[in-house]
Amino acid sequence: MSRRDIKELREKLLDQGVALLMEQGYHGTGLQELVRNVGVPKGSFYNYFPSKEAFSAEVVKHYIEPFIRQLDGHLQRPDVSAETALKAYFNELIEETEQRDFKGGCLLGNLIGEIGDTSDLCQLSLREAVRRYRDKLEEALARAQQEGSFRKDLDAKDMADFLVNVWQGALLRMKIERSVRPLAQFCEMLLDGYFKA
Amino acid sequence: MSRRDIKELREKLLDQGVALLMEQGYHGTGLQELVRNVGVPKGSFYNYFPSKEAFSAEVVKHYIEPFIRQLDGHLQRPDVSAETALKAYFNELIEETEQRDFKGGCLLGNLIGEIGDTSDLCQLSLREAVRRYRDKLEEALARAQQEGSFRKDLDAKDMADFLVNVWQGALLRMKIERSVRPLAQFCEMLLDGYFKA
Repeated sequence: MSRRDIKELREKLLDQGVALLMEQGYHGTGLQELVRNVGVPKGSFYNYFPSKEAFSAEVVKHYIEPFIRQLDGHLQRPDVSAETALKAYFNELIEETEQRDFKGGCLLGNLIGEIGDTSDLCQLSLREAVRRYRDKLEEALARAQQEGSFRKDLDAKDMADFLVNVWQGALLRMKIERSVRPLAQFCEMLLDGYFKA
Repeated sequence: MSRRDIKELREKLLDQGVALLMEQGYHGTGLQELVRNVGVPKGSFYNYFPSKEAFSAEVVKHYIEPFIRQLDGHLQRPDVSAETALKAYFNELIEETEQRDFKGGCLLGNLIGEIGDTSDLCQLSLREAVRRYRDKLEEALARAQQEGSFRKDLDAKDMADFLVNVWQGALLRMKIERSVRPLAQFCEMLLDGYFKA
């Protein structure tokens, strides 16, 4: 296999990992099903990842990157305030959630609930992923403060930590209420409420 | 078996269910281990519950009741304002969390993440449990509004929904940060921040 083939197969395994872990959780996901869905023999999985646990820790990193890029895309738009960019980003996520019929939620939140305190390797990976996401949100919030949209008496990093946590909680509630209401409330109470200048 | 024995054994199964589901999640928990820990033959499990799924839905109800009673206990204390009662309640939970070395979190949040969108029976039970908890919080928040501690321009039910969701998100973060900081921030930003009159 060429280096490119190897990279592609690794990506396929990670993509399939996102899908299976999202639907079935960590304990509910078997490597047998994973490799079958990707179409490779089980033995070849171990050429890429030493264990299911190490694989899941990689899936977490793989999962969060597109969200950071998506948010960054909004922040890079010229002539758009950070507040507007943040709201556009979260509204996009809310629309996607409706399209998925409220299923899934956030893979990070799901895995934290299931194994965030029992797998050290995944705990570390989840913590790093959430902090990377928090850092990008902090950048947005600090800019919104400078632009005068958001209050300045709170630290942007604290606000970003709070925002990440509130969003995770709203996503959990969304799943059982089968409604965007918890996500809309997140926007109303934080972005249009507590955080406003 | 007497009616009392039957009730006691059912309680034991539910208590053990809380412990196992908390540590291992839904898919990671086997009925074999459950009945072994309680010391009954597997067949007798089915005298009490038709399935693992139905059992888990009952565990959810069983789990939330003590929290509602604990909060109610604080609210019933004479000469204590609703704001003080709420803070005492959450501070108690934060202390318990530290004593458990940040493990566990909330069984409702964990199960919502893992199976909140894949088991209809558990989804219903989780939704009802969260709403029952929300109702008790709403009672506390409405009283805090009447007493002039909390802002009155927001609906107490909306505030209670938000509070439940933010608490769930903070508990998830607590697990991977292995720190009470997210829970302390919940108190600062909601009870001493956004909600204040």
